[in-house]
Amino acid sequence: MKKEYTSIKFDYNNMMSTYVGAEQGITDKELAGTKNLAVQAHTYFKLNRGTGMMGWSELPYNQAEVVKDIMNTAKIVRRNCDAFVVLGIGGSALGPMAVFQALCHLRHNELKRNQRKAPKFYVEDNVDPERMASLLDILDLDKTVFNVITKSGSTSETMSQYLIIMNILKEKYGDKANEHIIATTDAKNGNLIKIAKKENLKTFIIPDGVGGRFSEICPVGLFPAAVLGIDIKEMLKGCAHMDKLCRKSDIKSNPALAAAALQYLAIQKGKNISVMMPYADSLKLMADWYCQLWGESLGKAVNNKGEKVYVGQTPVKALGVTDQHSQVQLYTEGPFDKVVTIIGVENYRKEVVIAGGCEDFPSVSFLSGHTLNELITSEMYATEYALTKNNRLNNMITLPEVNAHTIGQLMFFFMLETAYIGAMFDINTFNQPGVEEGKNATYALLGRAGYEEKAAELKARPQKSENYII
Amino acid sequence: MKKEYTSIKFDYNNMMSTYVGAEQGITDKELAGTKNLAVQAHTYFKLNRGTGMMGWSELPYNQAEVVKDIMNTAKIVRRNCDAFVVLGIGGSALGPMAVFQALCHLRHNELKRNQRKAPKFYVEDNVDPERMASLLDILDLDKTVFNVITKSGSTSETMSQYLIIMNILKEKYGDKANEHIIATTDAKNGNLIKIAKKENLKTFIIPDGVGGRFSEICPVGLFPAAVLGIDIKEMLKGCAHMDKLCRKSDIKSNPALAAAALQYLAIQKGKNISVMMPYADSLKLMADWYCQLWGESLGKAVNNKGEKVYVGQTPVKALGVTDQHSQVQLYTEGPFDKVVTIIGVENYRKEVVIAGGCEDFPSVSFLSGHTLNELITSEMYATEYALTKNNRLNNMITLPEVNAHTIGQLMFFFMLETAYIGAMFDINTFNQPGVEEGKNATYALLGRAGYEEKAAELKARPQKSENYII
Repeated sequence: MKKEYTSIKFDYNNMMSTYVGAEQGITDKELAGTKNLAVQAHTYFKLNRGTGMMGWSELPYNQAEVVKDIMNTAKIVRRNCDAFVVLGIGGSALGPMAVFQALCHLRHNELKRNQRKAPKFYVEDNVDPERMASLLDILDLDKTVFNVITKSGSTSETMSQYLIIMNILKEKYGDKANEHIIATTDAKNGNLIKIAKKENLKTFIIPDGVGGRFSEICPVGLFPAAVLGIDIKEMLKGCAHMDKLCRKSDIKSNPALAAAALQYLAIQKGKNISVMMPYADSLKLMADWYCQLWGESLGKAVNNKGEKVYVGQTPVKALGVTDQHSQVQLYTEGPFDKVVTIIGVENYRKEVVIAGGCEDFPSVSFLSGHTLNELITSEMYATEYALTKNNRLNNMITLPEVNAHTIGQLMFFFMLETAYIGAMFDINTFNQPGVEEGKNATYALLGRAGYEEKAAELKARPQKSENYII
Repeated sequence: MKKEYTSIKFDYNNMMSTYVGAEQGITDKELAGTKNLAVQAHTYFKLNRGTGMMGWSELPYNQAEVVKDIMNTAKIVRRNCDAFVVLGIGGSALGPMAVFQALCHLRHNELKRNQRKAPKFYVEDNVDPERMASLLDILDLDKTVFNVITKSGSTSETMSQYLIIMNILKEKYGDKANEHIIATTDAKNGNLIKIAKKENLKTFIIPDGVGGRFSEICPVGLFPAAVLGIDIKEMLKGCAHMDKLCRKSDIKSNPALAAAALQYLAIQKGKNISVMMPYADSLKLMADWYCQLWGESLGKAVNNKGEKVYVGQTPVKALGVTDQHSQVQLYTEGPFDKVVTIIGVENYRKEVVIAGGCEDFPSVSFLSGHTLNELITSEMYATEYALTKNNRLNNMITLPEVNAHTIGQLMFFFMLETAYIGAMFDINTFNQPGVEEGKNATYALLGRAGYEEKAAELKARPQKSENYII
């Protein structure tokens, strides 16, 4: 019998003027007015999916072979090692971390080996020397496998980590160092594929048309997830499920297209901030993953016509209920410059009852007998209410429960929403030209050959004034 | 001989039009134009320090007695327990976490007992049932001490946690349960002080005039820090050091006042986003702490005259170099709506050399021989350069090194800056009225007695339309 899947739900009532007030809210007429734009965006996606930098859109369907390879390798790694370390940054780190947090025990690394049934998991996505030294302090290298991930094979941060780790492994294990490193990179381009061949590393390939921030559902994310015992086939089925829900070009039925159209309108109304606020610790890092997807895809100086547009909406990660005690004051009383997206969970995987014991104190004891589940859910609806009452645009995505299938749905929802809204803005959603300037300046500052001109440019900057340094 | 302390440095060259361009930048004339406002803000602070909700400003000077008590208690806790758990949310959690991350080993909880010389450290700042269950899965209660922190003594989240934990402890240890809980709360107000007396709990007092987001340098933060072996006297000396640097009302010499005036001007120029971007993993959570301080203090609907102003600047946490691969594309190419504050570190506490090994690949091997220290520092300056070249307002705070003294300086710098800019906006910097709405709605949803009217109000909301749910 075929398993019945429940879909995640997108509720945008509180984006609309009926609920959030006429001054801030979106009217039915305005929403209807995006019809042509929405149809165009949907058509563009439909016609181009699977091609160019939209290769990622076919990943739910074309990975049967590589999933087999991933599962076989993961099985061996799970059996042989006690720590699995991703060396990667950006998209090579954010997806693996988000899925780990969503689908493993929240204190996974601190469980005993027989409780966790998978290696400890680390993602090193920075080059802070204190951080690298700290990691080396706690690893038992004999039982550690590293997964170095970079599509270009030339990411300075990741390749620096590779050099450091490979050197340690070679000193310790000589010819057998390669048993401790697995590479994930492009099939042809860049250095890492060549190095992997030379060093005889087990290698997974990042398919064409899959940029970093769209790579969680290719081997970049699937292999770490499989090592952790996550059902990656279910994740991919969840993606396909969402893809199917978004097949139509009608914003009334396509949730990702509706979400894109609403954000498009909100941006026109001056909402330059998008807050992503899950009410679940398991989804905290999903907000981080979203922040890269949204920020890097939409933050563009020029559109496809070459006109200067300087578009983008700044993503902000928040966590319910925690940030009610940090950010919600600003969200309800500050400038009208945000859209808040709440992510709710219908069924948490645990239930915790709030005990009695303070019967003399009614303002505490009213909590007794309720569950934390009720408390966090009530607070979520209370925040939704407070935002709405204060005329703040908000919407809610609800997961029936956090599992591999709904996580697949959620990630694909955001990827589709991003692709659609990028098309609405007529920008290149899939490049990141603004990162080049910093990269080249770094090369120049480190004295890399070929960057003498950039070094001269840096040297020619107006000198800083001591008056402006206190 | 008296120890010589190095001050943290505030560099705002790249806020100025000379460096960041005339269209976006601040001119000398504009900055000079804030003189009266700055003098007023400074005078207001000077006249009112130590009174009302500015009690926090005297904390560097008036805690000799309580510090003794903290040190003595911390010594016992350090000796007897293997895990120390803070139950708190908002200011009761963000400060302790930030200082822990800044001044302990980055993998503290995973070090062996003899390496870490202090208990494992946990801060439970949410009511997600999965999170609470996860924590209970890994704690050895026999060796655990909880520190329940709430100034009001009625924070639902914290008191729920207290009820759950106290119930478990009483079932397990009966009359000796109180050996496992320490309370930190107000001397007179709220339930927790009464409960603490009834249960005979060791208690620390949160002094008057110290709101949650200004409480890290009172027992709220000092006790957890002391348990972790952090030199809290040095932290307080660092605060006093910064206080001294900010004694004058001249923005040319007072770094926090200059920072406030610059942000004030930037907000007038439409920069509604403040990005806090440390280039150090140890300072990642310091950005979280800043986000509460800045967001909750400045996000206000009305000013002191009762006029509707809806002010505030949305704080965004970022991490260098990590977010170069996530957010910097948006920061350099998106809308001109931000001020980016980079926090740099002159001397990291570790040095890691990038090894050789890829001599055949020049675009990798140019890294060899450099250190991670050089790499992260070069990337920081490269990002500063890219931002400036793209006319994006940015400034840099530099710590000579991360230690208890500089952390004290940094936190006091931000607290002063916040107090000054709040005075410039003529708002109540120290309240959070916007949080009440959500609290009351939560009470109503949980059926608490006395909130029947609010429950009726919630029930009377316009019903959601199914058309807006997909």
